[in-house]
Amino acid sequence: MTEKNRFLNLRLGILGGGQLGKMLCQAASNWDIETVVLDPLEDCPASSLCSKYIKGNFRVFEDVAGIAGEADIVTIEIEHVSTEGLRYLREQGIETRPSAEILEKIKDKGHQKNFYKDNNLPTSEFIICSSGDEIKELISKGDIKLPFVQKLCRDGYDGRGVYIVRENKQLDNLLEGESIVEELVEIKKELSVIVAQNGFNEVRCFKPVEMVFNYDANLVDYLVSPAVIDQSISDAAEELAVNIIKKFGLYGILAVEMFIDKNDNLLINEVAPRPHNSGHQTIESCDTSQYEQHLRALFDLPLGNPEIKSPSVMLNILGEPGYEGEAVYQGLEECMKIDGVNIHIYGKKITKPFRKMGHITIVDNNIDKALEKAEFIKEKLKVVA
Amino acid sequence: MTEKNRFLNLRLGILGGGQLGKMLCQAASNWDIETVVLDPLEDCPASSLCSKYIKGNFRVFEDVAGIAGEADIVTIEIEHVSTEGLRYLREQGIETRPSAEILEKIKDKGHQKNFYKDNNLPTSEFIICSSGDEIKELISKGDIKLPFVQKLCRDGYDGRGVYIVRENKQLDNLLEGESIVEELVEIKKELSVIVAQNGFNEVRCFKPVEMVFNYDANLVDYLVSPAVIDQSISDAAEELAVNIIKKFGLYGILAVEMFIDKNDNLLINEVAPRPHNSGHQTIESCDTSQYEQHLRALFDLPLGNPEIKSPSVMLNILGEPGYEGEAVYQGLEECMKIDGVNIHIYGKKITKPFRKMGHITIVDNNIDKALEKAEFIKEKLKVVA
Repeated sequence: MTEKNRFLNLRLGILGGGQLGKMLCQAASNWDIETVVLDPLEDCPASSLCSKYIKGNFRVFEDVAGIAGEADIVTIEIEHVSTEGLRYLREQGIETRPSAEILEKIKDKGHQKNFYKDNNLPTSEFIICSSGDEIKELISKGDIKLPFVQKLCRDGYDGRGVYIVRENKQLDNLLEGESIVEELVEIKKELSVIVAQNGFNEVRCFKPVEMVFNYDANLVDYLVSPAVIDQSISDAAEELAVNIIKKFGLYGILAVEMFIDKNDNLLINEVAPRPHNSGHQTIESCDTSQYEQHLRALFDLPLGNPEIKSPSVMLNILGEPGYEGEAVYQGLEECMKIDGVNIHIYGKKITKPFRKMGHITIVDNNIDKALEKAEFIKEKLKVVA
Repeated sequence: MTEKNRFLNLRLGILGGGQLGKMLCQAASNWDIETVVLDPLEDCPASSLCSKYIKGNFRVFEDVAGIAGEADIVTIEIEHVSTEGLRYLREQGIETRPSAEILEKIKDKGHQKNFYKDNNLPTSEFIICSSGDEIKELISKGDIKLPFVQKLCRDGYDGRGVYIVRENKQLDNLLEGESIVEELVEIKKELSVIVAQNGFNEVRCFKPVEMVFNYDANLVDYLVSPAVIDQSISDAAEELAVNIIKKFGLYGILAVEMFIDKNDNLLINEVAPRPHNSGHQTIESCDTSQYEQHLRALFDLPLGNPEIKSPSVMLNILGEPGYEGEAVYQGLEECMKIDGVNIHIYGKKITKPFRKMGHITIVDNNIDKALEKAEFIKEKLKVVA
């Protein structure tokens, strides 16, 4: 790509128009990068913001292939896209980041775990099982012990397709389909590290953030940036993330979810080769947002400074359990009175229990104050119908 | 507006789709506020970003009136709109902020100066003249002395319509049309203060920023946030801005450009009842951006915290003199290597000398470092064709 055309006439195709696609379009609009979004829903969060919306299903080969001619480079905001479609685009001279090969290593959780094993990257012990019956068989043989985590190899999404099994009676409700069964790690902390690499193999890494989970929803409850951990663990986590992106040979951004176990060892949970929920806080908290960083990586621009400008706490705004219908944001105005509260409403018309409707990043030099504000907001703000 | 509909089904009409409209749409997209932009140019900066673009001329009554039915509240990003159109919208139950009456007090520079005089607000001495000949007449009578500043009462824009007259020979080139002739103030510093008021009469004010001018282009060269001034002058400047917005009875945001004269007195230069060039730095520099603040004021939401998170220097990216045609951003990649450099490219296809093509906000706790970076960028980055 020549200097002349650098900031004009560059069309970025984005497979998926959810909030991640939306925020990528927001970052792209700062630089006049034309964005073309493919999504089945005309009123998806990114549709009115992108330069061009194309109705189509990113899981379907023909629809992904149809992006050829509309974009100069293509990326994803969700793993569940047609990798055959990505291959086709590459044959037409349109680079996709991630590539089909890298995405295939990641989107199937079995392949992903094997990749770590084959590359000596630390992760929990696991077995790949083809069915619930096979799991029960291996349990009776003693090859699998409770407690364990069962994760569907394919199509897991936003906490679905993950089942933590602690008691025998749960064995009647195992998820059906090929899955990985992982030993249940005694987790001290859950971290996420976001790292980027551009085509010049320049790599820059954001500081680890700490995720506190809502186990009902299997989604992040709070996220604290930076993670409250020793410098040595923080450095090791960054180093691990850098190692992973290099081993994958990925250009673009990679979110690496890790555990610190009771022995202070780092274990990779899973990765996502796209902007990530744990990176929303970078928008207000860091010198460069994950979205801008992803753009820099995609277009082989110098990577931006990932330093934290200001500590923050991020909350997901989830649909209130028990409500489904046109979303109403109860208590939002109260929350807007609080200093340092940055609200993101994704623009999904319908709320459902635990649906990601938005997020709030509370920026405060005093993390305890930020956590207090977060508590207040959690009590006050309800997305109902 | 009921709580139920607060963040859904609210349509904001924006008259004008330039960069100010674009950045307002960017802020609106964080909260899922539907934006409807009226502009003559289909490829104006805001057009691909807004929810709906309507081709039309905001100076023309019929086109402004035609917004009725498309928006629930209407604002402007430029003063030169049809105020009769604003009146018509109000008659249809669509509030405009600013109102037609307030805008009329401001858009005509003669009316604006008289407003300050009538309200005992400090501003430089002035006379309203109907023509160049009248000015010459008053000079010969001794009522006007050189040097002075001549400003057209109407249609001045981005530094045009302003003529600083220091020598007699310039009197042959006076601007034609009704104008104000102001005594030329010996300026120590030029400040801008941005203040907001919502419909509950809540007022919040950003810290003064300091503007350093490019006198060739009659546009801002650098802008330093916060201004390097004594606390007492800073407080007085904020107090003055608050006083002005209250006297106008304006809901929305108001940018107040002021001078500090050689006696450390504050004098109002002019105001703009809309987001302003001097407020771009608020995006990265302050807790709340001017764009978000304007939205809060428009929708009667609690105003946001205007505190500076981090000092900054803002540069306008102006079209290089001598070039006109499809814009090329020479040296931009070099600038992207520097930490703390936040680049905004507005997306105007054609560059012209001194055309506002974008801006860069350099965030750095050390203002001298930021100024060094700004110098580097000024040398490196050229918008040519």
